Amino acid sequence: MSEKNLILDAVANKAERSPVWMMRQAGRHLPEYREYKERYTFLELCKTPDAAVDVSLQPLRRYDMDGVICFSDILVPLEAMGMELDFNPGPVFAKPIRSIEDYRALEIPPVETNIPHIFETLRLLKQELKGKGKALLGFTGAPFTLASYAIEGKTSKNFESIKSWSYHSPDTLKEILEGLADLVADYVLAQQKAGADLVQIFDTWAGQLSLEDYREFAAPYTKRIIDRAREHNLPITLYINGGSHLIPAMVECKPDVISVDWRLHIRDYLKMIPEEIAIQGNLDPAQLFAPPEQVREKTLEILEATKHRSNHILNLGHGILPTTPIPGVEAFVDTALNFKK
Amino acid sequence: MSEKNLILDAVANKAERSPVWMMRQAGRHLPEYREYKERYTFLELCKTPDAAVDVSLQPLRRYDMDGVICFSDILVPLEAMGMELDFNPGPVFAKPIRSIEDYRALEIPPVETNIPHIFETLRLLKQELKGKGKALLGFTGAPFTLASYAIEGKTSKNFESIKSWSYHSPDTLKEILEGLADLVADYVLAQQKAGADLVQIFDTWAGQLSLEDYREFAAPYTKRIIDRAREHNLPITLYINGGSHLIPAMVECKPDVISVDWRLHIRDYLKMIPEEIAIQGNLDPAQLFAPPEQVREKTLEILEATKHRSNHILNLGHGILPTTPIPGVEAFVDTALNFKK
Repeated sequence: MSEKNLILDAVANKAERSPVWMMRQAGRHLPEYREYKERYTFLELCKTPDAAVDVSLQPLRRYDMDGVICFSDILVPLEAMGMELDFNPGPVFAKPIRSIEDYRALEIPPVETNIPHIFETLRLLKQELKGKGKALLGFTGAPFTLASYAIEGKTSKNFESIKSWSYHSPDTLKEILEGLADLVADYVLAQQKAGADLVQIFDTWAGQLSLEDYREFAAPYTKRIIDRAREHNLPITLYINGGSHLIPAMVECKPDVISVDWRLHIRDYLKMIPEEIAIQGNLDPAQLFAPPEQVREKTLEILEATKHRSNHILNLGHGILPTTPIPGVEAFVDTALNFKK
Repeated sequence: MSEKNLILDAVANKAERSPVWMMRQAGRHLPEYREYKERYTFLELCKTPDAAVDVSLQPLRRYDMDGVICFSDILVPLEAMGMELDFNPGPVFAKPIRSIEDYRALEIPPVETNIPHIFETLRLLKQELKGKGKALLGFTGAPFTLASYAIEGKTSKNFESIKSWSYHSPDTLKEILEGLADLVADYVLAQQKAGADLVQIFDTWAGQLSLEDYREFAAPYTKRIIDRAREHNLPITLYINGGSHLIPAMVECKPDVISVDWRLHIRDYLKMIPEEIAIQGNLDPAQLFAPPEQVREKTLEILEATKHRSNHILNLGHGILPTTPIPGVEAFVDTALNFKK
């Protein structure tokens, strides 16, 4: 059973104040994280549970946030499929999927087999957090984003390969997306079994799709995961950076939480997201570079605008930036902790 | 005086069919352009009027489009300010603007002085196009995008420097934006004098701004240029990739044409753009990788949706991609030429 915590309260539409955490909170903006990076590569960190646990807990030692996110990567499900991942410095796959035969030739083991370290990290984190009233958050890439990486082989600018595939052979692309959806569903449920209270799905590249293409090549596969998670009472957050045009289709996926970027004011996003879906966001991560008093004002603006809802989770509109000054983060978190609804 | 052409007809809301051209039509998707690139760097090409003229005309030799865009770069106004630009491979400024003193120390000559080659290219193109019924198109970066490059020094991912500046010292940033607006206004009017029938303003990075910040740090400076151009009857097109959330503020700038990306269907964009502003767009550039028959269908969908307006200009939603297959482009252009309103 999940312990009581404010993030789950927000999901249940009964949070007494907006809980707060930050995407990428465990990472480069912390000097103590940068020390780890002198000894470990990013992938080594992900694969060494003791270190990953420590790194996941680092932000909590500085800021009294309401959630801890497991240190990991959105591309883990592709590793679980046996695809060899490296960082150089962005993610690179030695053997991208170039044809449906490449995909069909993959022998996909049960999700626990290739990536046991993730679940070990989650189990250890669950013990560490016992009785502290903090949510343990898992995450994953969405099927469309995973397929983009698998097919493009690396971070792409224009996504010619996967889009081209969608025009020439939509059915075989859908076969891959379906397979990925099933794999990711297994993966998020395995995260729940290992202790995650909620899992956030990042569809990092979906903002490159038109609303029409998102509805065809991304939403149905994300929804398939959300539907399976719901059967197991696992809440799911859906996040797409640069996805303000996709909100109507994200709502149709019926996630428990929609995490919104900073491109529109939270007031505008609130109009698009029905009350039964919780909303997470949405300070521009660059705003943390402002003088702390200004960070406080801008954070208050979000908290005031969401005051009438008991299902708002305060977050940034995108991951915290590596050069963010600590006093900006402190102002952000403290404002949330001290806000009276 | 401008000769009659269909693009100007569309601006005047009386085009008998949707004229067609493509952003980045003169460039890497053409083998004859790639041949030039074996002999010239990008900057050398921009600065050699005979070569720039030839490259600008290359797409017209393959496709019977309605407009020719002058081969150049959006960052030219920064060069006109005396900032030294190089490409490596993206744009890099040796001495970015780090303080308001750096900016004030720039001695800005009249716009014609530092970049005479651009105007020479336009004059030569005007002669070449005489009597052919084609529009000659100029372009420039918008003040916010130019300031981003000048301050970040290169293509940025998160725009920490300029955003940070906007939080700590908005007034000095606005001093720079105002200076850039005046310079760009001079620049677009000088392009008109050299023969441009219309100038497109690219606010390449504005899609990274919230609607609120766009209204404060980008729109007023773009509007200043549009207002000055209007006094001289120079039509202006405004384009922001990833800017679907900014359309309300773009409309408030009152450009003659708004160029829209592919993230929403043209039907949705038509609802946001009043009839007195022409609309340009918006096939996903990746769509040209589809089988030609499918390119035709998707192009027809746009032409059908805009049939009731005499002020639609067919274009892509973003620049044509370097690996685009020629038959896809042919299908796109031919569909426009043969479409009966």
